[in-house]
Amino acid sequence: MLLDDLLKSPGEWLGGAGPQADIVISGRVRMARNLAKYRFISRMDTAERQAVVDLVKSCLIARGVAPADRIFELQQVPKLDCKLLVERHLISKEHEEAPHPRGVAIGDGEAVSVMFNEEDHIRLQVLKSGMRLQETFVQAQGVDAKLDEDLDFAFSADLGYLTACPTNVGTGMRVSVMLHLPALVITRHIEKVFQAVSKINLAVRGLYGEGTEASGHFYQISNQVTLGKTEADIVANVEQVIPTIVNYERKAREELLKKDRVRLEDRVWRAYGLLKHVRVMTSDESMMLLSAVRMGVHLGILPGLDIGTVNELFLFSQPAHLQKLAGKALEAHQRDIRRAEFIRGRLESK
Amino acid sequence: MLLDDLLKSPGEWLGGAGPQADIVISGRVRMARNLAKYRFISRMDTAERQAVVDLVKSCLIARGVAPADRIFELQQVPKLDCKLLVERHLISKEHEEAPHPRGVAIGDGEAVSVMFNEEDHIRLQVLKSGMRLQETFVQAQGVDAKLDEDLDFAFSADLGYLTACPTNVGTGMRVSVMLHLPALVITRHIEKVFQAVSKINLAVRGLYGEGTEASGHFYQISNQVTLGKTEADIVANVEQVIPTIVNYERKAREELLKKDRVRLEDRVWRAYGLLKHVRVMTSDESMMLLSAVRMGVHLGILPGLDIGTVNELFLFSQPAHLQKLAGKALEAHQRDIRRAEFIRGRLESK
Repeated sequence: MLLDDLLKSPGEWLGGAGPQADIVISGRVRMARNLAKYRFISRMDTAERQAVVDLVKSCLIARGVAPADRIFELQQVPKLDCKLLVERHLISKEHEEAPHPRGVAIGDGEAVSVMFNEEDHIRLQVLKSGMRLQETFVQAQGVDAKLDEDLDFAFSADLGYLTACPTNVGTGMRVSVMLHLPALVITRHIEKVFQAVSKINLAVRGLYGEGTEASGHFYQISNQVTLGKTEADIVANVEQVIPTIVNYERKAREELLKKDRVRLEDRVWRAYGLLKHVRVMTSDESMMLLSAVRMGVHLGILPGLDIGTVNELFLFSQPAHLQKLAGKALEAHQRDIRRAEFIRGRLESK
Repeated sequence: MLLDDLLKSPGEWLGGAGPQADIVISGRVRMARNLAKYRFISRMDTAERQAVVDLVKSCLIARGVAPADRIFELQQVPKLDCKLLVERHLISKEHEEAPHPRGVAIGDGEAVSVMFNEEDHIRLQVLKSGMRLQETFVQAQGVDAKLDEDLDFAFSADLGYLTACPTNVGTGMRVSVMLHLPALVITRHIEKVFQAVSKINLAVRGLYGEGTEASGHFYQISNQVTLGKTEADIVANVEQVIPTIVNYERKAREELLKKDRVRLEDRVWRAYGLLKHVRVMTSDESMMLLSAVRMGVHLGILPGLDIGTVNELFLFSQPAHLQKLAGKALEAHQRDIRRAEFIRGRLESK
């Protein structure tokens, strides 16, 4: 099964490369597109939905967005593999759970992916590590242009791209950046930052998008408005605010180090000590501990540990990854034991 | 200063030897004696108190209970060293804090010690690791007999030995056993056990005697009644109940292992992971963590660690021991840093 390949490493977006990678995990540009000749997904019957799947698939292959063996119809993908795709940010939770014909194409290195028959006929995304939204945006435009050559997109001269949900109408574009902000949480400044962000029409979400908790001190900042602005404006808008937040986080880290260095070191070492020794660990706990360790590595408190290992642990200690590594479905308590074992093993060998 | 010798190792009583040493830390026999020709301490002036000190000291030396250089007048002992003696169970907290002429004699290996001018003129104790009260009692009788040859004890044919506090009148003897009962605490059976114990006139106290908390899951069981019973009865009374409590603790451990072995292992490894990595640790936290680790070693969960090291850490991570090791007085936060450092160091080298 090709999806097992994914277990060899995390996607490029979690590689810890790219500018400001200590705080900016990744940037993402997502475009929603619909086919002019088809009704929206929710109005279609199964045959029509399958027709869209077939049409989009052949276009993706023809235009070289993804090879045929990296395009998956999710009805044919085992449940656990679908969950794996969610954990890797390649498909949404809703897409995983939907009952109708649908799929995903995964481009090289997982940077490019295209969901078809999610909320819209097509949702393409480019996801890259670190702070490089401009480059990410250009690549997304490239994929969009390729698809546009074959497919006739629903587009109104007044409104722009038409989408199933009115909040996406216009550019159909969402730009988001995933940030790691532990020091702002510890110093209790995070709420102030988010109040400021929401005033300029940006949204704050947790690790797995809308409605999810900010597990492991990861936060996604994204644009709310897609209409009445150019794509370049939206990118610029998000790009402008991120350095401010990143600076706040840096200052909060400096403040913690200055005020009580040993207390911060203690927090990091406690997390490391637990990760290295516990026998049962929930996902929530591992995220919180890994968050402290991640900050510790970047502050030079844990010099022997490389950040790639830590970033990888965030992903591989998720439920579906753990079960795929174990080669079988596991109940929650069994996962908690495996998780502890897996993390211990990875840290031990370092 | 001779007291620095004490830092080389803990006393024999904490050596982890003796029967049932996994649960029975130590047993102690203490005898209260007063001199017939002197008033009780509280009624004396300073000159009289000093006269008692001089008299008892010369007797202790003459009878070979302790050599001259192991007999200390506490007014001449620095505050920190006095606290060290409290932590080693060689003197009481009250004795440390009293303002008048007083002292302590320390026999070989710290098994025998004699306080003079504490609440009574003389309080001799024998303290030994593990469950061997009979042997301890015989040794205490030997010390008592030696002193009796030179000193005229206040004794009434009706009441027995006369003591400053009526609760000690009669035999003047207190027998106590220090137990480590973590599993009974975890399974919440500890209260039931203590209710049963108090019904047969035994008292339950914390690590440092009356009024102290059961830090690190250590409990002292001792007789309440000293009057109207023979010494042998009192020893037999305590000796009889201890195996029952020890068995309850063993059953609680088995129950924990049987019900959820991995959960218990997790508890032990978490404690070990923290002890080995934290940077700041309060005395309370270290006692709780060491307690879990101590149980873990005895259950074979932490095979690489010897129990001597763990027992030693209980004592050496106490405030006065830490400060003596550091060679200077330290404030609470500095002690917490040193404590973490010290424990880490000891566990690292194992």
